[in-house]
Amino acid sequence: MKRKVTLKQIAKELDVSISTVSKSLKDSPEISEDTRQKVRAFAKLYNYKPNLIALSLKNRKTKTICVIIPEIIHHFFATVISGIERVANEKGYNVIVCLSDESFDKEVINMEMLANGSIDGFIMSLSKETQLKKDFHHISEVISQGMPVVMFDRVANDILCDKVIIDDNLAAFEAVQFLINKGFKKIALISTVDYVSVGKLRTDGYLKALRSNNIPIDEEFILKVEDMDNCSGQIEALLLKNSFDAIFAVNELFAVTAIKLAKKLNLKVPEDISIIGFTDGMISKYSSPSITTVSQNEIKMGEKAATMLIDRLENEDEDEEHYKTEVIETNLVERESTI
Amino acid sequence: MKRKVTLKQIAKELDVSISTVSKSLKDSPEISEDTRQKVRAFAKLYNYKPNLIALSLKNRKTKTICVIIPEIIHHFFATVISGIERVANEKGYNVIVCLSDESFDKEVINMEMLANGSIDGFIMSLSKETQLKKDFHHISEVISQGMPVVMFDRVANDILCDKVIIDDNLAAFEAVQFLINKGFKKIALISTVDYVSVGKLRTDGYLKALRSNNIPIDEEFILKVEDMDNCSGQIEALLLKNSFDAIFAVNELFAVTAIKLAKKLNLKVPEDISIIGFTDGMISKYSSPSITTVSQNEIKMGEKAATMLIDRLENEDEDEEHYKTEVIETNLVERESTI
Repeated sequence: MKRKVTLKQIAKELDVSISTVSKSLKDSPEISEDTRQKVRAFAKLYNYKPNLIALSLKNRKTKTICVIIPEIIHHFFATVISGIERVANEKGYNVIVCLSDESFDKEVINMEMLANGSIDGFIMSLSKETQLKKDFHHISEVISQGMPVVMFDRVANDILCDKVIIDDNLAAFEAVQFLINKGFKKIALISTVDYVSVGKLRTDGYLKALRSNNIPIDEEFILKVEDMDNCSGQIEALLLKNSFDAIFAVNELFAVTAIKLAKKLNLKVPEDISIIGFTDGMISKYSSPSITTVSQNEIKMGEKAATMLIDRLENEDEDEEHYKTEVIETNLVERESTI
Repeated sequence: MKRKVTLKQIAKELDVSISTVSKSLKDSPEISEDTRQKVRAFAKLYNYKPNLIALSLKNRKTKTICVIIPEIIHHFFATVISGIERVANEKGYNVIVCLSDESFDKEVINMEMLANGSIDGFIMSLSKETQLKKDFHHISEVISQGMPVVMFDRVANDILCDKVIIDDNLAAFEAVQFLINKGFKKIALISTVDYVSVGKLRTDGYLKALRSNNIPIDEEFILKVEDMDNCSGQIEALLLKNSFDAIFAVNELFAVTAIKLAKKLNLKVPEDISIIGFTDGMISKYSSPSITTVSQNEIKMGEKAATMLIDRLENEDEDEEHYKTEVIETNLVERESTI
C-alpha cells in the first residue's frame, strides 16, 4: 500500500533536520542549493504533498481552529484551552488541540500537517526547544500565506502577529514586593533556565524588585532548574543553604516541591520560610499549606486569544499591519504559605 | 463570502437536534421521512458537505489519529494522552485532540468534522451526555465505513470495537476490601450518578465488597454527586452524619474535597476517618495528608489504546470480527490518608 511520505521520513532518509527539509521545500536561501535540490527530488519521488494554503484559503472556511501547546499535564495550558473553547463554541468554531511536547520538530510537523486547509488559524504557545533554537520559519511561513496566528504566553518577539501575554515581569515584581513589604530581605528564587521566555521575565521581575528596594542580589539564592522532572535535588540543595527566609518560585510545581522538601528538612512553612508560587492551579489550592500564588487568569487569556483569532478570520479587510499585543492582568492570591 | 454550513447551523435553522440532522443525512429510518427530506433539502441548498470516508479511506493515509476526550483539566485524561503520544510518535503518527466537554453534540460534531479523511482513526472516551442518551450512531457509522475506533475508560458495551478499560468493579472492590481488612465496618461511598459507566462499576464494587464480608449496606452512607463542580455541599452533608469511620471516593476530587471539609469540621484524617480515592494524579500526591488511591496506570492505558489502533490501521487483513477488550491492571498506592 502506498503511504504518504512525511517530513520526518524525508529528514531521516537524507540525514538532515526536519527544519532543513521544511526550509528546502520552501526554497529558503538559508539552505544550500545542493541540499534543496536533493530534498525536492526526494519529495517528488515519494509524492510528498506540500501545503497549498494560499490556493484554497479564501474560499474554504473550515470553522476549525487549532491550538498548539507544549504540554497538557499542567493546569495552565489546560485552563487556557477551556477559555478558548468557550469563545470558539459560542461563535460556532471547533477547536482541535496538538501537543508539541516541548519539541521543535513536533511543532513544525503539527503546523505543516494542519496548515493545508484543514483549519482556519492557529493559537499557539511555543515549545521550549523552539525558544532555544529561535527558529520560527514555520510560523512566519504560515502567516505570510495568509493564515492568522495568535501566540499566547510563550511568544516570539521576532514574529509579527497578534499576541496575548501577561506582564510576567510586573507580576513577579509584585510578588517579590509583597514579600519585601512583609519585612523579608533574604528572598530566594526558583526559576527556569533563561531561554524559557516567561522564566526569564519572572527572573528579571525578581531582580528588579530587589534592586528597587536596595536589597543586594545574592547569586547563592538564585536557582535555575534545568530539568523540570528532576527538580528535587537542585531545590533540596538550595534549601540546605538555609540562609534565606522567603522563596519566590516561578511555577506551582517548584513551589509545592519546595514545601514538601522544607517539611522533610524540618523547616516550617510559613513560620520558617514563606513561599509564593506562580499559576493558580489544583496544586496550589490543594497542597498543604495551600500556596500563595500569582493567578494568571488563564480563562481570560484563552478567551482573548480566541476572540482575536476569530476577529481576524471574520474581518478580512482588517489592516494586517496592525497586530495587537493584549496584556492580561494578574493578581496575587493570598493563602497559607506566606505569613 | 460563502461559508460552509455546519451541522449545528442546520439544526438551529430547522429547530431540530444535531443528532436528528446527522441521522437524517445518513437516511436513518429512525427519523421521519418528512424531516429527512427537509434536512436534506436544506443541506443541499446551503452546500453542506457530508463525509465521504469510504471513498478515500483505503488509498489515503494521513498518519494522524484523533483522540476525543470529555475534558482535560483533570489528570486522568491528560495522562492517557501522554501514553497515546508516546506510542504514536514512535510509530510515526501525529495525534490531534478534541474535547467533547461532556456534550453529546460536541462529540458528534468533532467526529463528523474529522471523519472526512483528515485522520486515520479515533481513540475516544465517551461524554457523560452520550452515556446518558445511549445514542452511539455517530460512532457505529464511522466504524461501519471502515475507520477504526478504539474506546477507553468510558466505553459503550453496545458498540463493537477494540476497547481498553480497567476493571473498575474489581479495583473498587479491592480498595474497599483494604479498608475492611483494616477493621472498618462503617464505610461511606462518594460516587457519581449511575449513568457514568465507571462510577456505576465502582459503586457496584463497593457494594460487592460489603456484601461478601456480610456488612449491611446503609443507604445513608452512599452519596451520588450530581454536579462535579458543586460537590462540596453534598459531601459536607454526608460528613455531618458523622457515623462512619472510612470513605471510599470514586475520584481524587471527591477525596480531596472530603479531606478539606473534614478538617473544617474538626475531623482528623486518618485518625477519625480513613479516606481512599481513585486516580493517582497531582492532587493525590500533593494534598496533605497525601491520598491513598487506586492508580489506573493511565500511561499504559494510552499506550495500549494507541497500539491497538495502529495495529488495526497497519494490518488491514485482520479479522474485523475479532475485537479485543484489554484490561489494564490497577494497584492501590498507600499514602497518609488511611491508617
